[in-house]
Amino acid sequence: EQPQDRRYIKLNTNESPFPPPESVTAAVSSECGNLQLYSDPECRVLTDKLASMYKVRPEQIIVTNGSDEVLNFAFMAFADEKHPLCFPDITYGFYEVFAELNRIPYEPIPLKDDFSLDIRDYLGIHKTIVIANPNAPTGISLSRDEIEAVVRSNPDNVVIIDEAYVDFGGETAVPLIDRYHNLLVTQTFSKSRSMAGARLGFGIGSESLISDLHTIRNSTNPYNVNRMTAAAGYAALCEQAIFDANCIKIAENRKWTVNALQKLGFTVLPSDANFIFTRSDRISGECLYRKLKWRGILIRHFEKERIADYNRISIGTIDQMKRLIKEITTILEEQHL
Amino acid sequence: EQPQDRRYIKLNTNESPFPPPESVTAAVSSECGNLQLYSDPECRVLTDKLASMYKVRPEQIIVTNGSDEVLNFAFMAFADEKHPLCFPDITYGFYEVFAELNRIPYEPIPLKDDFSLDIRDYLGIHKTIVIANPNAPTGISLSRDEIEAVVRSNPDNVVIIDEAYVDFGGETAVPLIDRYHNLLVTQTFSKSRSMAGARLGFGIGSESLISDLHTIRNSTNPYNVNRMTAAAGYAALCEQAIFDANCIKIAENRKWTVNALQKLGFTVLPSDANFIFTRSDRISGECLYRKLKWRGILIRHFEKERIADYNRISIGTIDQMKRLIKEITTILEEQHL
Repeated sequence: EQPQDRRYIKLNTNESPFPPPESVTAAVSSECGNLQLYSDPECRVLTDKLASMYKVRPEQIIVTNGSDEVLNFAFMAFADEKHPLCFPDITYGFYEVFAELNRIPYEPIPLKDDFSLDIRDYLGIHKTIVIANPNAPTGISLSRDEIEAVVRSNPDNVVIIDEAYVDFGGETAVPLIDRYHNLLVTQTFSKSRSMAGARLGFGIGSESLISDLHTIRNSTNPYNVNRMTAAAGYAALCEQAIFDANCIKIAENRKWTVNALQKLGFTVLPSDANFIFTRSDRISGECLYRKLKWRGILIRHFEKERIADYNRISIGTIDQMKRLIKEITTILEEQHL
Repeated sequence: EQPQDRRYIKLNTNESPFPPPESVTAAVSSECGNLQLYSDPECRVLTDKLASMYKVRPEQIIVTNGSDEVLNFAFMAFADEKHPLCFPDITYGFYEVFAELNRIPYEPIPLKDDFSLDIRDYLGIHKTIVIANPNAPTGISLSRDEIEAVVRSNPDNVVIIDEAYVDFGGETAVPLIDRYHNLLVTQTFSKSRSMAGARLGFGIGSESLISDLHTIRNSTNPYNVNRMTAAAGYAALCEQAIFDANCIKIAENRKWTVNALQKLGFTVLPSDANFIFTRSDRISGECLYRKLKWRGILIRHFEKERIADYNRISIGTIDQMKRLIKEITTILEEQHL
């Protein structure tokens, strides 16, 4: 839901409430003078910088038009009739969409009653696995040891770990890359790096996996990342301290919000992401979503079994979160009138 | 070939030699302050502007991450085992790549000996057709009447007209859109609008065709066009007079170059594009490509049957073309030593 008609406090798509630093604007502006020239299809400058930050070789990285693109490429490359997909029943909705589009058989594996993932369900499963860590929309994360157990037990299948939200408190699987040829980690600049509108994602894995993804890229859209986005990404990587500080602020605001919601009687799942997943016996998820929207705050409600009672709320600035709690308090009070 | 090691006069990828106007940079810069927010997945502002310029409804337009993306979407949507593809044997190389990736059967239809396209080969063919008009790498174009005959005679199949180069002298098929539900026209900002590095393409067709393409887009990468590119595209559309003047300059420089090459004994196919396709009995295509590269000028040579003798040369500024002719003259003289 990306309404263009009116200004909302947007707590529905897990964007950062902080704009990117000025240096990103400067880098993009200086790139505009070269827009008549194609971008580097290999995005070498950006890729080299990412490689040095993540302590891997450039051949172990692919950059893409958002991390949706690298996920779609990975599904195309590593899953088919003989390598069906599996992922949790409650997770990022696009896995199902990508699987349907590419006609890949898939099996959703139910999360436990508390929405945690039991890694025993994935050990030696002989399927292509995709796990969001932290998971969305729950925010619950697995430890690196748990991820490693899944990867180790499925040597003949690719395990895709979608780390879109890892910077807000999760533990990245990137240090495992050199030990497991079958591990692909995907990340994005959309969340912790304040660049959802620039569309930049990347995958890190063994040279052989990344080479397969480049083959798909070269067969669909070799110039997939434009000059401005590549320049913005490079500039952002030079400002990592700013983004680290933003992540700390988000974690603080998350803690404040969880506490405030619990005081109002809400149940909140333990989150390591820049959003929380919450429900209340006092108001239905759908009703809270609707009433908050009317009051100018967008949160995310899913019309889906198991989670229809819940809402996913992105963590914004402390002022935004205070306003959220104030409006929820008013809504709950009105219920009694 | 996009070498990053050294500065060349780039006449190999049909880029514009003219940078985009300052207003594009300004529009992009002001968009950078909102990069933390997702782009509008429908790109409504840009789409509405395109619709008004091309005199169609917004529902008849889809914007994409370069026109390669809309072409790939169209192949996925409109071609399969039951709707095999056909296109000329000599044309944009990616049609074959997209077809292979999507496992679509395809049949290359030979151009005539003079590299012109005989539309009789396409009348009532009962296949999904893709024709680049003007064609690449030949530069030869078809009239709108000829395109219409192909579209009219294949009512049960989609006809895709790839107009990447139409602004340099071709005749667009867009005015036929409202009369033929099976016509899809694709265009790009990469050539006449000096924005190859921004990655922006679009498709125009009946609402039903465009709706199918949106379905594919929503199933692969809904936020396919980033905020900066959308802003750059809108700003560019407000400067159409500048781009029209650029196209006139390119046509003049093309005429000058053709004339100069003919004086050196080259055969040049009649081009309506921002490139020419040329050969000489005095030097092989491969040798001329190699010698020009050594002298700092990149042109495009194809290791492909029928056209291995030829080179495709993009039309740049008049200074670049004068330098090209000077270097070719020197190379030919050296042959005699």
